[in-house]
Amino acid sequence: MSQIRPRAASRMAGIAPFHVMAILAQAQALEAAGRDIIHLEIGEPDFATPAPIVEAGVAALRAGHTHYTDALGLMQLREAIAGFYATRWQATVDPAHVVVTPGASGALLLALGLLAGPGDEVLMADPGYPCNRHFVRFCDARAVTVAVDAASGFQLTLESIQRHATPATRAVLIASPANPTGTAITPDELTRIHDWCAAKGVALIVDEIYLALTYDDSEHSAARWDDVFVVNSFSKYFLMTGWRLGWLAAPAWAMPALERLAQNLFLAASTPAQHAALAAFLPATLDELEARKAELRARRDFLLPALRERGFVIPTQPQGAFYLYADCSGHTDDSGQFAQALLEQVGVAVTPGLDFGQHQPQRFLRIAYTQPLPRLVEAIVRIDGFLAR
Amino acid sequence: MSQIRPRAASRMAGIAPFHVMAILAQAQALEAAGRDIIHLEIGEPDFATPAPIVEAGVAALRAGHTHYTDALGLMQLREAIAGFYATRWQATVDPAHVVVTPGASGALLLALGLLAGPGDEVLMADPGYPCNRHFVRFCDARAVTVAVDAASGFQLTLESIQRHATPATRAVLIASPANPTGTAITPDELTRIHDWCAAKGVALIVDEIYLALTYDDSEHSAARWDDVFVVNSFSKYFLMTGWRLGWLAAPAWAMPALERLAQNLFLAASTPAQHAALAAFLPATLDELEARKAELRARRDFLLPALRERGFVIPTQPQGAFYLYADCSGHTDDSGQFAQALLEQVGVAVTPGLDFGQHQPQRFLRIAYTQPLPRLVEAIVRIDGFLAR
Repeated sequence: MSQIRPRAASRMAGIAPFHVMAILAQAQALEAAGRDIIHLEIGEPDFATPAPIVEAGVAALRAGHTHYTDALGLMQLREAIAGFYATRWQATVDPAHVVVTPGASGALLLALGLLAGPGDEVLMADPGYPCNRHFVRFCDARAVTVAVDAASGFQLTLESIQRHATPATRAVLIASPANPTGTAITPDELTRIHDWCAAKGVALIVDEIYLALTYDDSEHSAARWDDVFVVNSFSKYFLMTGWRLGWLAAPAWAMPALERLAQNLFLAASTPAQHAALAAFLPATLDELEARKAELRARRDFLLPALRERGFVIPTQPQGAFYLYADCSGHTDDSGQFAQALLEQVGVAVTPGLDFGQHQPQRFLRIAYTQPLPRLVEAIVRIDGFLAR
Repeated sequence: MSQIRPRAASRMAGIAPFHVMAILAQAQALEAAGRDIIHLEIGEPDFATPAPIVEAGVAALRAGHTHYTDALGLMQLREAIAGFYATRWQATVDPAHVVVTPGASGALLLALGLLAGPGDEVLMADPGYPCNRHFVRFCDARAVTVAVDAASGFQLTLESIQRHATPATRAVLIASPANPTGTAITPDELTRIHDWCAAKGVALIVDEIYLALTYDDSEHSAARWDDVFVVNSFSKYFLMTGWRLGWLAAPAWAMPALERLAQNLFLAASTPAQHAALAAFLPATLDELEARKAELRARRDFLLPALRERGFVIPTQPQGAFYLYADCSGHTDDSGQFAQALLEQVGVAVTPGLDFGQHQPQRFLRIAYTQPLPRLVEAIVRIDGFLAR
């Protein structure tokens, strides 16, 4: 009997693979062949999860905390998250409005699943984290990407939003500090955008997964408003990437729908991870996290001038995260080929701009300082050798 | 300034809450007031995760296995899963075609996200697990529910599929053994359905999360075909509910798209859980799991005749899972009110049929035997008292 292969849904045409995965695979192949590769392509801290969190996870497993939690998460953890907003960001968050999710990925899926469907549009910056536009596409809505550049710190402005808004605009998505640029939005601009969204009935989603990794003491959370969807994660600042735990702080009106979505899409976030995360807010843990953060800052403060001196243009000092988004057009007119050659010739892996959007990707590289300082020094030595060829 | 509340996407109107959650909340309120409640409403085994899995999880945490894995999962775990198909179900599965997911929920989201979008239809049985139709609705497709009854073991038949198929039919979703009925599809009927789907270019998705909990030695996996999407989970047989880990075995053609979706929607499944699950296939673990399964079977073999003797009609012996779907129309014409009264008057919590679809839900109750045998005996005593009032 003849067989017909099922076809994929139309959304799949709009969901691209991560190009960095090809770089990573190639880097691993070179390593397998004996080469020493410096991994500056990976968006994951190289630090281990702090011991108090690990031990809380161990204790949870041994205590048998392996059954489902409530779909919204452990109330004790939701309260601890609300407490962190109060102490760290002087923002009042009701624990009842916090959903614990499988990573920030889960939080974005909940927020966009609630807000965006066929015919709807969601505004976001280009360059930006590629999953953001793919989540929107997954929800059969349209990601309207707005080209941003150094003039606005690679962030949306109210003016750029107004220019791209249509009656179909359902949400504005802002990431601050952002991946791949590390740049943050100013409190004033965010306030203007918030007020415009509130007046227009447009939802404001703010991705703050790198907020606690802001290096210039300018952390400001959008949770100071109670009508914003604020996405956060235990992955980056709290060094819990593989545990897959994040959260969403949402407006009161959205909670019943978000609970229904969480019940159906996830059942709940990982129970051992939730128990472990309770230790993330202990003073000893926060001390360790702040020390890690100081180390990341030191890496930025080495790498940023070093790259600038070598002709990479990074016009805006990135406030946070662990990325530099470097204009390499002084060296090449194709950042993809440049990244390829850098990997092959001197064993330094970076991510070409192509992963982050359509706005001049061929001019840019994302360089993640997720390696210890001595390795960054070695990377610069290798880049010198590469540029001298 | 006046504010306008954003509106929810249209999909949300099609995503209902779990009615069982209201029963659960009420049961917990009664417990808080000092009442003893027998929980037969919860679709989660009461057993702890086996010790070898817990200890493997502990070892993984202490070894620092807390970074992201590959989006498709640890290759060692994908190989172990393929090995389980070979030894348990005599099915050849290529590890390269296995995706490790955050629970079976993640597997269903991947499969339906790949296959179903606006304008598409997915056929499934009514009664059925409510999340299935909600996943389809989440993907902006239409869940076409087909009323099934005892005559077909509450399973779809090729004839019923042909009657409901249209040119928009993109997938058929079968769960075997099924929630809420515990009944399995016969190998012959599944073969007929498989062949029809293959000839028509309709995807076949088979949810086998309860397959290893089949009590009459008739386990047969749809993974014997390499063109089926087979969903499974570490939650039920392996007793790892709160760890949130499952998998999807998929056709070769689908793997690149599924990898893209997994990268974007999840990044990866929980790393500690993946390492822990490597211990799920150890002989010592499987011995414990088989002992647990024997206990579940003994519960079924007590509860099924006990309920039948009391006028609850369960025409088809359920082959697996841990549910009985009982027609209580000899006692009531409203199973929701009946469940409510049973809880309030004698402290036995069960789930009304309403959670599982539109086909005669008022006649049915789902009774989960997720409590030890002495508690089931006590539940029957209480039901006797209730019926005698």
